[in-house]
Amino acid sequence: MLNFTFKNQTEILFGKGQVSEIASRLPIDANVLLLYGGGSIKKNGVYDQVTDALKNTRFVEFAGVEPNPTFETLMKAVNVVREEKVNFILAVGGGSVIDGAKFIAAAHNFEGDAWDILTKKAAFENPLPVGAVLTLPATGSESNGNSVVTKKATSQKRAFGSPTLQPVFAVLDPVYTFSLPTRQVSNGVVDAFVHVIEQYLTYSVNAPLQDRFAESILQTLISEGPKALAEPENYDVRANVMWSATMALNGLIGAGVPQDWSTHMIGHELTALYNMDHAQTLAVVLPALMYVQQDKKKDKILQLGERVFGIVDGNDGSRIDRTIKAVQDFFEQMGVSTRLSGYGLDEEAVDAAVANLEKNGLTALGEHGDINLEKAREILRLAV
Amino acid sequence: MLNFTFKNQTEILFGKGQVSEIASRLPIDANVLLLYGGGSIKKNGVYDQVTDALKNTRFVEFAGVEPNPTFETLMKAVNVVREEKVNFILAVGGGSVIDGAKFIAAAHNFEGDAWDILTKKAAFENPLPVGAVLTLPATGSESNGNSVVTKKATSQKRAFGSPTLQPVFAVLDPVYTFSLPTRQVSNGVVDAFVHVIEQYLTYSVNAPLQDRFAESILQTLISEGPKALAEPENYDVRANVMWSATMALNGLIGAGVPQDWSTHMIGHELTALYNMDHAQTLAVVLPALMYVQQDKKKDKILQLGERVFGIVDGNDGSRIDRTIKAVQDFFEQMGVSTRLSGYGLDEEAVDAAVANLEKNGLTALGEHGDINLEKAREILRLAV
Repeated sequence: MLNFTFKNQTEILFGKGQVSEIASRLPIDANVLLLYGGGSIKKNGVYDQVTDALKNTRFVEFAGVEPNPTFETLMKAVNVVREEKVNFILAVGGGSVIDGAKFIAAAHNFEGDAWDILTKKAAFENPLPVGAVLTLPATGSESNGNSVVTKKATSQKRAFGSPTLQPVFAVLDPVYTFSLPTRQVSNGVVDAFVHVIEQYLTYSVNAPLQDRFAESILQTLISEGPKALAEPENYDVRANVMWSATMALNGLIGAGVPQDWSTHMIGHELTALYNMDHAQTLAVVLPALMYVQQDKKKDKILQLGERVFGIVDGNDGSRIDRTIKAVQDFFEQMGVSTRLSGYGLDEEAVDAAVANLEKNGLTALGEHGDINLEKAREILRLAV
Repeated sequence: MLNFTFKNQTEILFGKGQVSEIASRLPIDANVLLLYGGGSIKKNGVYDQVTDALKNTRFVEFAGVEPNPTFETLMKAVNVVREEKVNFILAVGGGSVIDGAKFIAAAHNFEGDAWDILTKKAAFENPLPVGAVLTLPATGSESNGNSVVTKKATSQKRAFGSPTLQPVFAVLDPVYTFSLPTRQVSNGVVDAFVHVIEQYLTYSVNAPLQDRFAESILQTLISEGPKALAEPENYDVRANVMWSATMALNGLIGAGVPQDWSTHMIGHELTALYNMDHAQTLAVVLPALMYVQQDKKKDKILQLGERVFGIVDGNDGSRIDRTIKAVQDFFEQMGVSTRLSGYGLDEEAVDAAVANLEKNGLTALGEHGDINLEKAREILRLAV
């Protein structure tokens, strides 16, 4: 096992009706920015429940945070925070809104161009505290310090993070996910699945508990994901998907083990270029990446096949092929195409994504740093 | 899944040499109580490493915290804290020392008889912050807010807890466990195993991820526990046992599921009466309790048998018997006897323990509250 430090200070408020607890978790003199996205929370009743919970609290609203939140929009929210002297950001939505809240929290008293926080890892001071009411289980953003922001003007998608940005609380009410569009449920399950894979499918450092925890999440997503599509109002199923997505990226399963994240990095370029959903890019890249990297990841692919998909017969090559196929089949079963052609893209997209990786200096990806531009091209070509 | 709140604020510093980080985690004006037990840390080098890490920090020592720490001893430490104006308690040891630190932290400015904190759940204010350097993986005390204290004068063993008592950091250096006596390693593995069982072997609330996480810890303990006895200086094995024991009782696997804890409650009486090691009492009580409660716990015993011990053939009754036997065999393999007679006790101990349960009002134990004195007697008789 590798040395590690692990701390996760987010208080999880899990279950039906838990939003009523949030007022007690806010600062006494709270002046809240209520941040949300396109307004679906006004249709499904979440907005009413949140504002009811805030009925004795001062707050101002900022709506319109996009999926793949843009720097341009978030800077408008930063201005609101400054003008209104906001001291707490309550993000109500999925990963995009919560990621956006973290950026606003970091940028609110940053002098100069706040884009530097993303591209130059520029230091920021006294970030605002953030709370989250999660409506879309997927990114794990509700209990980690990570954030991804896109600059519209230049099609650049960049990640940053800090433990100081981690939400102080996160409401996880499975009922809030009943009315999600199918596509978002599908994407969420695929996203969580790939988060686990990025921290699991590398090489062994003799950390069996981390391995088994990772496999536990994968098994749960495989069993509950399709049920979530078939029975949208099955509370327990939604609860299990929601808790799995949170555990997939809260620091736990990645503690003490190597991590990959190349699927995410390559996928980000496809989103930036073609506005593909984040999970769609992961579903496209991962199987091809497993194929290209199968020598380096051999032992873990075999373990994944055996423990998660029950693939035990045949020689190693056959087991690896069938395990990659099983991952692909799961994504397709969740309704997410695993081919670039499924999104109307072809070889041109391969060239464009590789050019973007080069432009962004992402030329040594993966747990061994051996995914150079040539390999990235090989992966993307396989995925056409 | 049941509603829950979950938060674990302990920062885990895991791995070889991590003790050097502690000074940076202390308050700037720290005046530390260095709390430890019988002095083994002076023989194995841990004391030297800790005091070296504290070389620029003011601290005073208090040694002699017993296994099953006594109220009498801890109150002496409370006096030291008051006299020396200590503002941080650093516990160096196993669960007993850390439990003791929590009690001291709670009692330091309690007016009146501090035993009331344990028996009357008396409120305490402004507990001191606690840090832990763990030398014995077992109780999980290093990252939870629980504490068990025994009053020598009356042979009463009582538990209390509060999130405010949870260590702010915990150093988990597997090397510190290399020199542990065999008996303590055995006890630690059994203790952690039963912690998992108390949160797992109840009834299903459709929480598959919690189930699989619990099974993950059990599987890891079963694979690594015997190796820890056979290869005391195998770093990875010790690391895996250590991380398993922490994860067994940090709030994670118990979130959103029913819990039992009757094995612990019955076992506590045996420790209070006969000074049996905590884990010894668990190894004695659990298999008998599984047998007596098999109707109520049937589905989960079958699941445990199948997923953890690979017991899939035969009818339910046979599978249940073999699963209980497998648990018993594992404890015996770890060198911990599962019979009262193994500790020189007989039917008299049954009567005495039941009388103690009655005296302490513990007459409705378990996840259904159906373990009354009669059932407790049946369990203990079976375990003679």
